Amino acid sequence: MQIHQQQLTLRAYPRGFHLITDEINACLGPVREWKSGICNLFIQHTSASLTINENADPTVRRDFETYFNKAVPENDPDYLHNDEGSDDMPAHLKASLMGASLNVPIRNGKLALGTWQGVYLCEHRNYGGQRKLLITAWGN
Amino acid sequence: MQIHQQQLTLRAYPRGFHLITDEINACLGPVREWKSGICNLFIQHTSASLTINENADPTVRRDFETYFNKAVPENDPDYLHNDEGSDDMPAHLKASLMGASLNVPIRNGKLALGTWQGVYLCEHRNYGGQRKLLITAWGN
Amino acid sequence: MQIHQQQLTLRAYPRGFHLITDEINACLGPVREWKSGICNLFIQHTSASLTINENADPTVRRDFETYFNKAVPENDPDYLHNDEGSDDMPAHLKASLMGASLNVPIRNGKLALGTWQGVYLCEHRNYGGQRKLLITAWGN
Repeated sequence: MQIHQQQLTLRAYPRGFHLITDEINACLGPVREWKSGICNLFIQHTSASLTINENADPTVRRDFETYFNKAVPENDPDYLHNDEGSDDMPAHLKASLMGASLNVPIRNGKLALGTWQGVYLCEHRNYGGQRKLLITAWGN
Repeated sequence: MQIHQQQLTLRAYPRGFHLITDEINACLGPVREWKSGICNLFIQHTSASLTINENADPTVRRDFETYFNKAVPENDPDYLHNDEGSDDMPAHLKASLMGASLNVPIRNGKLALGTWQGVYLCEHRNYGGQRKLLITAWGN
Repeated sequence: MQIHQQQLTLRAYPRGFHLITDEINACLGPVREWKSGICNLFIQHTSASLTINENADPTVRRDFETYFNKAVPENDPDYLHNDEGSDDMPAHLKASLMGASLNVPIRNGKLALGTWQGVYLCEHRNYGGQRKLLITAWGN
């Protein structure tokens, strides 16, 4: 059993949901020789997150932004944490609803995603800047 | 450290939340000889998901369906992605709220679930059909 | 590749969101000698959960409690499962929204959390009591 760990800094994406499967695939390195394993993706932030969803129709990603803005409203007068603006606390909440990490199986040297699955960066801040991911894969 | 990977195709379940712990246990194979490890369950779809919750009272699973139908409404006029019907976009959203994978520890050859924990298939489509899981366990 | 598995019983916390990063760090044992790996944290309950979020301003954790109480209301007359009081079914739902496990990368013998990231125990019951975690780490 081997382990492969690599940092990936994503360019600054606008607020919303973005397919980053290609960026992840470009970091697999020696994993491409493995028969089976797991690839963990971990985002080192508390106002952006990761999820897996449809990789085809871009309206799915726009509807994600629409839905989460309704489900986690800005400017709730009950929020106590508002230091960085109206997108601050909602970003923290959305980040925990989606989660900071994913675990994708490896099979025959590739991410074993289903036909319609892609990896999303969920950028919850208006100006989140670059985001750091730590990729850790294990297998053989 | 060993690795065990196996596909599991679940029969078509109706929309709702369903206990599938027994189906997972039937796939553990060599894992039953391990002292400790992890079992990753990964669903290769974007409109069904996996979670862990109460394994006893079936009303919990019915209340899950009730709650998520309210929290992620159908027929929101703001949805752009409606190609496959009113359950289409809500299914994608619910899938990301719950997540495509679980990681359950292995201890003494078994899933180390708590007394009241079971694995749920969350079927978010009206007619989702069979669902493919990839089970990957590692340990020794 | 080595594996380290250890149980951790958390003291009874009040309902709400609580930083437990220090309690996790105290259980790393041999993991402190590893260059890279993953640490899985698994809570063996269905009415408490784990997430990663901001480790600094305590108002973030209070806003988490405020938000989730609105997003998952108590006393919905449609709930069927009410045996243990008004916090019973909402606790199950919140537990699945957040999830029962986390996977945090290990780098140079430490949890590779981002600067602002901490591990939260999410206690969804009024009187949840002690909570059992199973910590499983692998790496080398």
